[in-house]
Amino acid sequence: MSDTPSRSHGRLSISASAKPRDLMDGAPRLHGAWEARVITLFPEAFPGTLGLSLTGKALQEGLWRLTPIDLRPFGEGRHRNVDDTPTGGGAGMVLRPDVVDRALRVAAQGVPADREEWPVIYLSPRGRPFDQRTAERLSRAQGMTLLCGRFEGVDQRVLQAHHVEEISLGDFVMTGGEIAAQALIDAAVRLIPRVLGNQASTEEESFSDHLLEHPQYTKPASWSGFETPEVLLSGHHGKIAEWRRDQAERLTKERRPDLWRAYRAAHGRDPGEDQEL
Amino acid sequence: MSDTPSRSHGRLSISASAKPRDLMDGAPRLHGAWEARVITLFPEAFPGTLGLSLTGKALQEGLWRLTPIDLRPFGEGRHRNVDDTPTGGGAGMVLRPDVVDRALRVAAQGVPADREEWPVIYLSPRGRPFDQRTAERLSRAQGMTLLCGRFEGVDQRVLQAHHVEEISLGDFVMTGGEIAAQALIDAAVRLIPRVLGNQASTEEESFSDHLLEHPQYTKPASWSGFETPEVLLSGHHGKIAEWRRDQAERLTKERRPDLWRAYRAAHGRDPGEDQEL
Repeated sequence: MSDTPSRSHGRLSISASAKPRDLMDGAPRLHGAWEARVITLFPEAFPGTLGLSLTGKALQEGLWRLTPIDLRPFGEGRHRNVDDTPTGGGAGMVLRPDVVDRALRVAAQGVPADREEWPVIYLSPRGRPFDQRTAERLSRAQGMTLLCGRFEGVDQRVLQAHHVEEISLGDFVMTGGEIAAQALIDAAVRLIPRVLGNQASTEEESFSDHLLEHPQYTKPASWSGFETPEVLLSGHHGKIAEWRRDQAERLTKERRPDLWRAYRAAHGRDPGEDQEL
Repeated sequence: MSDTPSRSHGRLSISASAKPRDLMDGAPRLHGAWEARVITLFPEAFPGTLGLSLTGKALQEGLWRLTPIDLRPFGEGRHRNVDDTPTGGGAGMVLRPDVVDRALRVAAQGVPADREEWPVIYLSPRGRPFDQRTAERLSRAQGMTLLCGRFEGVDQRVLQAHHVEEISLGDFVMTGGEIAAQALIDAAVRLIPRVLGNQASTEEESFSDHLLEHPQYTKPASWSGFETPEVLLSGHHGKIAEWRRDQAERLTKERRPDLWRAYRAAHGRDPGEDQEL
């Protein structure tokens, strides 16, 4: 697949050496649409789930772009080796700085050097935890480049040289960064204007308020001996809002003492009052 | 795709009404292999990235099994509606309890009712945060059933009725639970014996010790003006271990004060000494 020869805002084709699959081929291109470039040993993992549902529809409509960049062709020697043993010993393999450097240089073609305009991210359990605020920041940039790790990690020097930000999906270990990359992209893409359409969600508001979402109910009102809480059927908007807030507070306090403390602090209440709720 | 008529350990075929795609068709079946059943409106999202790399190889070898269960056929009426408006008002749509109940009953066929042996999980930002300890617990079970949400959520009553555990991938919002499901499965599957093979990782040890992983380096020792720290080239194992521990501690302290506090507490040191490191 070859890239469109020219682009309205001067991006270079990056297909020659990197052989990225431009998944937008055949779809309309919007001027300066938000773009995710993903450096990976498994370009065939993309778009994956991102090609379905709302993110897939938005991809087809050109509201965002996805460019996987295969790391393998940047490898060393006849076998295009991308990794080597950890210096100083230890298990696993580490991605070589020279190999990753070449891929990052190609990924940087035609995009802003300013990391605020175009974050460059390595997905790693060592990174700062991903959260909704980070998703908002990523969605406000012009796009981002994601580096998916495999094996034991990436040589630290290339992360420093390219001012690569490290982001973690959570305190758990996966076989590679591809699924984490998809999570970041999904969370960012759904915040791009027009992607969600009218399906506005209130969940973000919940997070920005440091509270978990209250329980939800729908039809039938009576199901299998389980009843919908009466207040929700009352039509009394004030009481419904009060009930939901109370439920959200109880849930947050029970499941997430960390969020609960932040919530109490943000509302100017003494965390010591926790017991009284 | 139809399921194999009989199984050695008495599981029922669940293909008749649910039309799950048994992705193990054609691959060898191991007696009682760990299995993930995934209830989703997008069964085509699976195996996705899980079909590649080490998890994909292990899937082919029958070390684990993946059974997507399409939620749509369980829907109501001619259009197989699966959702309805939130009772009490609000944005988005909520998955109906009767529809989800039917899918969960099919997913429960032939698997242990004991939730420790077979966790049933709803992926939701309201859940308890996923971590390595949870991944270990899931990998020790016989398998698990995952319910992928879409829209605003799932009716609370069906979660209660089926004793569904809620797990969150993190404090961010995605368009659906499918990518989160893949993250959970990946993290659990790689802990199943023989999946990682000889590619043992030390990362888990790091997490169980409440520390982030130290920086990694590999060849070339000198790259683009960036040198590998000398100690790693010294061959002195004691000094290398000491340097790595020091780096891991500094990184954890800088990036993750929450983990740092847990680490200090676990090592019987006063968190007040933080400043002195």
